[in-house]
Amino acid sequence: MRFIDKLRDAQQQKDSWLCVGLDPNPELIPPGVSLKTFCQTIIDATHEQACSFKFNLAFFLIYGPEGYATLADMIAAVPDGIPVILDAKFGDIDYTAQQQKHLTFDLLKAHAVTLTPYIGIECILPFLQNPDAMVLVLVRSANRFGNDFQTWPSKESPLFRYVTAELNTLEQRYPGQIGVSAAATLPRDLARIRSWAPNLPFLIPGVGVQEGDLRSAVQHGATRTGIGPIINLTRAISHASSGADFGEQARAAAEHWVNAIRRERDALRV
Amino acid sequence: MRFIDKLRDAQQQKDSWLCVGLDPNPELIPPGVSLKTFCQTIIDATHEQACSFKFNLAFFLIYGPEGYATLADMIAAVPDGIPVILDAKFGDIDYTAQQQKHLTFDLLKAHAVTLTPYIGIECILPFLQNPDAMVLVLVRSANRFGNDFQTWPSKESPLFRYVTAELNTLEQRYPGQIGVSAAATLPRDLARIRSWAPNLPFLIPGVGVQEGDLRSAVQHGATRTGIGPIINLTRAISHASSGADFGEQARAAAEHWVNAIRRERDALRV
Repeated sequence: MRFIDKLRDAQQQKDSWLCVGLDPNPELIPPGVSLKTFCQTIIDATHEQACSFKFNLAFFLIYGPEGYATLADMIAAVPDGIPVILDAKFGDIDYTAQQQKHLTFDLLKAHAVTLTPYIGIECILPFLQNPDAMVLVLVRSANRFGNDFQTWPSKESPLFRYVTAELNTLEQRYPGQIGVSAAATLPRDLARIRSWAPNLPFLIPGVGVQEGDLRSAVQHGATRTGIGPIINLTRAISHASSGADFGEQARAAAEHWVNAIRRERDALRV
Repeated sequence: MRFIDKLRDAQQQKDSWLCVGLDPNPELIPPGVSLKTFCQTIIDATHEQACSFKFNLAFFLIYGPEGYATLADMIAAVPDGIPVILDAKFGDIDYTAQQQKHLTFDLLKAHAVTLTPYIGIECILPFLQNPDAMVLVLVRSANRFGNDFQTWPSKESPLFRYVTAELNTLEQRYPGQIGVSAAATLPRDLARIRSWAPNLPFLIPGVGVQEGDLRSAVQHGATRTGIGPIINLTRAISHASSGADFGEQARAAAEHWVNAIRRERDALRV
């Protein structure tokens, strides 16, 4: 089943645009709790609210080979029907991208992957050979240095507009397989990207701990065909507490955010 | 000891600008040879010719958790005095880059890392906290789609010029810690990057199987202060043969290339 169809079904069945991010930070996991127990607890506590899970590769590799094995186990532990994104921000030539594709889909068995496009469209194409897969390409980030290159050479004609246009063209050859990652904290740019690419699903980080603009994520997030945004919250859910109650706090935070998203959406529909 | 000093010493002692790349491709490793045996054989056969080794993270992760463990073992197996580059092309926000730094330097114990800059300078800064480390930032690639974004918006005023300028500025705060990756197969651009950034060491892929321009790599590769280019050959050495003689063929190929580099350099000095 295609990522995009799984996503649509999960969004509709749960009335949720919430993606739960797992960046298991060793400094924030309660003492005595294993990586596996931590992740399983978060999945159990939040999966009823989640239309997707996002796993950050680097945050598993820091636990050594065992962390790699746990990542594969935890992706497998996500209930059927919830599509999984591997957040790897891969961006390499074809020869390497072929192996990254193998890692992502065959070994880790994720359903989508994040990519970073500096090296060109070439870093994307191998992943599209899997017709069920989706790529979520970094277009616009809200980090402190996000303007360094994404707005080159000017805010009127920025690189990220050109990247969006290229992805929009690519989507015609690979319908339902191309999405973009764009930050909630830049509402004007989010609106522009939506106007340039009406059909590309949005992965939207930058809500929650990063104090993003939930309203604009909801307002501009959905595609013309009704795929809702994948609104990712990581620390605000997975590390809502670093005490023994981290599971309960994650559950409460997931409920809070899925409701906050619904409220914003309903307010816009009035 | 700093990467840059190790590199300078290795280049001088061996009269070599050759970097041996290890992208162990399962389809090209001789049947019955383990990943570990393959890598150890290549290191043994080529280290006398190499001023550096470059390990491609993705090509080890495809062997599963055991491949991860082997990567750490093989980096440790590189003889003292030869600096090791982790080719990961990381490019993420600070929160994730901190973990990538920990993975690169503390767990895998590499001495330098490749990065891809779309997300901004932010992806670089955490790695520079380690004063011995070097980052090699992708500036200009020669892949089929390398012009997609690197030359935006024009060949006269391309993104890669701006990226180079930013790295050149950063180098003033972090002397000896910033290098660039630029392809040998674009001689004119290699010359331009050298003119814009006289002090940034070059990692130069694209020679060998990719049919790069060795002459331009040698001509424009060295910094004003005499750090030679890190001329990377991967498939032409590590997979010179996919038969039982792969070690001997790798040794012969390394000798061939280190001599070819010397000849080009000597021809220019006349």
